[in-house]
Amino acid sequence: MASAVEELGQRARDASRVLASASTVVKNTALLAAADLLVDRGPEILDANAGDLAAAERDGLKGAALDRLRLDDSRLEAMAAGLRQVAALPDPIGEVLDGTRRPNGLDIQRVRVPLGVVAIIYENRPNVTSDAAGICLKSGNAALLRGSSSALESNRVVAGLLREGAVKAGLPADAVILVDDAAHETAVEVMQLDEYVDCLIPRGGPSLIQSIHDNATVPVIIDGDGNCHVYVDAAADLDVALDIVFNAKTNRPGVCNAAESLVVHRDVAEAFVPRVASALVEAGVELRGDEPSRLLHPMGTATDDDYAREFLGLEMSVAVVADLESAIEHVNRFSTGHTEAIVTRDLDAARRFTREVDAGVVIVNASTRFTDGERFGFGAEIGTSTQKLHARGPMGLRELTTYKYLVWGDGQIVQ
Amino acid sequence: MASAVEELGQRARDASRVLASASTVVKNTALLAAADLLVDRGPEILDANAGDLAAAERDGLKGAALDRLRLDDSRLEAMAAGLRQVAALPDPIGEVLDGTRRPNGLDIQRVRVPLGVVAIIYENRPNVTSDAAGICLKSGNAALLRGSSSALESNRVVAGLLREGAVKAGLPADAVILVDDAAHETAVEVMQLDEYVDCLIPRGGPSLIQSIHDNATVPVIIDGDGNCHVYVDAAADLDVALDIVFNAKTNRPGVCNAAESLVVHRDVAEAFVPRVASALVEAGVELRGDEPSRLLHPMGTATDDDYAREFLGLEMSVAVVADLESAIEHVNRFSTGHTEAIVTRDLDAARRFTREVDAGVVIVNASTRFTDGERFGFGAEIGTSTQKLHARGPMGLRELTTYKYLVWGDGQIVQ
Repeated sequence: MASAVEELGQRARDASRVLASASTVVKNTALLAAADLLVDRGPEILDANAGDLAAAERDGLKGAALDRLRLDDSRLEAMAAGLRQVAALPDPIGEVLDGTRRPNGLDIQRVRVPLGVVAIIYENRPNVTSDAAGICLKSGNAALLRGSSSALESNRVVAGLLREGAVKAGLPADAVILVDDAAHETAVEVMQLDEYVDCLIPRGGPSLIQSIHDNATVPVIIDGDGNCHVYVDAAADLDVALDIVFNAKTNRPGVCNAAESLVVHRDVAEAFVPRVASALVEAGVELRGDEPSRLLHPMGTATDDDYAREFLGLEMSVAVVADLESAIEHVNRFSTGHTEAIVTRDLDAARRFTREVDAGVVIVNASTRFTDGERFGFGAEIGTSTQKLHARGPMGLRELTTYKYLVWGDGQIVQ
Repeated sequence: MASAVEELGQRARDASRVLASASTVVKNTALLAAADLLVDRGPEILDANAGDLAAAERDGLKGAALDRLRLDDSRLEAMAAGLRQVAALPDPIGEVLDGTRRPNGLDIQRVRVPLGVVAIIYENRPNVTSDAAGICLKSGNAALLRGSSSALESNRVVAGLLREGAVKAGLPADAVILVDDAAHETAVEVMQLDEYVDCLIPRGGPSLIQSIHDNATVPVIIDGDGNCHVYVDAAADLDVALDIVFNAKTNRPGVCNAAESLVVHRDVAEAFVPRVASALVEAGVELRGDEPSRLLHPMGTATDDDYAREFLGLEMSVAVVADLESAIEHVNRFSTGHTEAIVTRDLDAARRFTREVDAGVVIVNASTRFTDGERFGFGAEIGTSTQKLHARGPMGLRELTTYKYLVWGDGQIVQ
């Protein structure tokens, strides 16, 4: 007998068949209807959210975690605006990626199609429910959503309104399915829905990623850590370097595209390290460096663990390197494949760094904070992939698609 | 302590860094040098192969399995020719896939780069050693090869010559690494080399695929089964349909793009089923059908298991359906996502079938046997993906690549 989660997977798959050939107009209608519902039925959502908040407070949730769970009128407006923005984006489905005519007269086209069923496992922000469902719907995928137990009441109402929006447009309600049971086991069940889930995108911390590693058998795109480096080259403009390092570290230290590590060419270390260190320390950043850095400014000692760590806070590791090659080696050794930056005026150095550093995004003379679907112009983002298969870097609508080959003939057979 | 396989993974990763920025000329030099070595040192390979064959015969290997293991001068020539053909193909690396200038002046480019380390686990054909290594090398990837124990001596010599070819071109020998121990455990170790393997492509039968499912933690592209259907529509040209069904089933029944199932619209069933059944039965094909098919021609009864089965031999399931919609439903229910074909002169039917059938390749009015890298014009093939993530359908050089974003600025920071 199929389990409850398996039945949801099956329903999502059935809905995905319909979504795959839904027109852009119909999908947009569903998104706009859902946006209106989020606003019109706001009180209903806020009621449910109040219940979640009260339960979470009883369970001892506080501070930022509690704040992430909270919805209010302006957050509902933002969720609705997000759906409208996705509706306004071009539809990726049906794009002919390339094509050829073969010598035997066969015409072959590679056409962009939806993945099918996209599962998202996420933590306690209820706005992910509408953001993720909206992006899936626009890209022609059924969304199988599994949020946290703390947000279950809020998610139920939000997902229900997205389903209503789908139905208003003539799409199946099951275009959006919330796993209505946030027991730990249901997450693992979703990770193993091989027959029904075409792609799973986990959005959460290290314990979720570990559980994916241990349990997932469906295809996964990891939205991973960002141990991002800024390398200040011998040929850097040091004023530019100061701005970039300061921005990359302090603009929003808690996110994955914030810089965690500063690497400085020894030829400019004496001029740059004391200057950048003073500015960072003044902004509350705690530095940990190698021997040469510590001779230039007082700071703690960095271990390999520090160099490998995504601090997600006001801490930064510092390393002084002998040359560009050592910089690239250091970066590749500790990189998580998210974003790496070089500051230089030397074209050869820039070309070599961009070629040899192995990361989703390699930036020359700008802040690591630019790695973001919005800032890249995608209009919507579902995460940043740190793996190499399928999608790398910021993921928008296009990254939730695959392709199929269409072959048109007039009776060709193989001799 | 790192295990032996882990050390190989590490070495492959180190080599992959060099390969990633190797020029096309250097990579081609390595391929051509290896091709020459395969011919010049042919006797050495055949000696090793004779040892493998003798041991395999002692172990009771026979027939087609023994033949797959066998090398001779013409097979060595074919392996060398394969490497020369790959050398002649355009280099996929460095292609700019797309790019934009953002309002703040940042230039963003998406550039094609190698995956890094590609692992291939394969069965007893020693020619896969050079074919796979050649495709990996041309696409800038290090190849970590794990062949079967029966071909170990042959693989050692072939991989050794590919390594020699790499060194002759100034590339690291570790561009090609053979796991020199074909104990069962080493395959599982390769499947779990998370730190070093960017993509694993298994090439083998159901037991290998099951082991991948149970053990693999690295990203995998499944080269899966092909339960391919040919649907003969109400508006089919029945002469064309006869040729296509006959070709798709009998041209080479043992391969994944052979047809396994015939689906016929009831309006043409009376005219078509007896005709095609006679031709197929005459060619030695055993048919199994549903009630309506069996009324039109004597054949066994098809169960759902038969409809789901990739026979890989002279057997075929037959179903008669009421309309196009039922045909699409039947195909999507039993499809393995490989190749599905329709025979029709009706444009609406063709458009609907190509849109709604969920498979890597959907063919109109031609044989399913065309799903193949060579026949698609890729010049080389490493398998046919039946999954949706990353690559779908026949995989050539391009499918062994990923991309990275390069961002060029002049001091931009995030406000």
